[in-house]
Amino acid sequence: MLIRPYSPDDWDAVWTILEPVFRAGETYPVPRDISAADAKAAWTSGAKQVFVAVDDSSGHCLGTYYLRPNFEGAASHICNCGYVVSEQARGKGVAARMCEHSQTQAIARGYRAMQYNLVVSTNESAVHLWQKMGFAIIGSIPEAFRHPRLGFVDAHVMYKRLSPPAR
Amino acid sequence: MLIRPYSPDDWDAVWTILEPVFRAGETYPVPRDISAADAKAAWTSGAKQVFVAVDDSSGHCLGTYYLRPNFEGAASHICNCGYVVSEQARGKGVAARMCEHSQTQAIARGYRAMQYNLVVSTNESAVHLWQKMGFAIIGSIPEAFRHPRLGFVDAHVMYKRLSPPAR
Repeated sequence: MLIRPYSPDDWDAVWTILEPVFRAGETYPVPRDISAADAKAAWTSGAKQVFVAVDDSSGHCLGTYYLRPNFEGAASHICNCGYVVSEQARGKGVAARMCEHSQTQAIARGYRAMQYNLVVSTNESAVHLWQKMGFAIIGSIPEAFRHPRLGFVDAHVMYKRLSPPAR
Repeated sequence: MLIRPYSPDDWDAVWTILEPVFRAGETYPVPRDISAADAKAAWTSGAKQVFVAVDDSSGHCLGTYYLRPNFEGAASHICNCGYVVSEQARGKGVAARMCEHSQTQAIARGYRAMQYNLVVSTNESAVHLWQKMGFAIIGSIPEAFRHPRLGFVDAHVMYKRLSPPAR
């Protein structure tokens, strides 16, 4: 598996990965009926740096993630990421590899911490993976996410320090 | 005191209120050297609905706040606000009145909850006021804010339900 920067030529492959996840509406706070154009803007525009995980031999896209500042100004040392793995590539460690890669990228860019703002509590495999990767649940937002089958469920704010304590 | 929707004609008065707060850099995650144009975009553009609190008799602007969705899609029922009170009008209940007003506006717009993403822990008057207004600290982000005098300080995520429990 190779993780490399996204280029606009990758969009069709990336959208193939994102679309079923956004349409399912169980993990990301994105409108389920979002258009491809709006999804492209949401995933790749602004201050985001986007990466793709591709299969070494076939070149197939296995997953994608973005890295961006989570806040500006006096809190711009905290970054945020979003990760999506292709349905065909689940359970192969792609998310863990992208998470590791994103932390290395974040440290190289001078970020001091990484924060996930809305980890849906019922997405247990994600919650457990991020905990395994060193992220802590620093708070839970009650009924933050309207799950299509489960109704209103909580979501976690998760955080990992990327550098030694400042104090 | 009257609280009414912001109009573009209010910008000069609003900027007079915002500028010293942004320049001080002690409470809002906005670049301290932000230009007036960028501040205008940050405070009034996108999905934000902006209000001003004005003195009934003089018409002077006492404060301003924005209301916006904090997330999209399946979490778009949670809103976010930012409030700034004129330095000359501190201690007169302007923030409390704007907070009440924003909750009424939020409920009218169908929001179910209000979330503040980054309440700087050293901004004790704000933390106490929001608690008095019914907001709970649901988590604290370690060293989230680089305070110009105090260095890295924590910031709180605060939350208030605006409707009865969904379950």
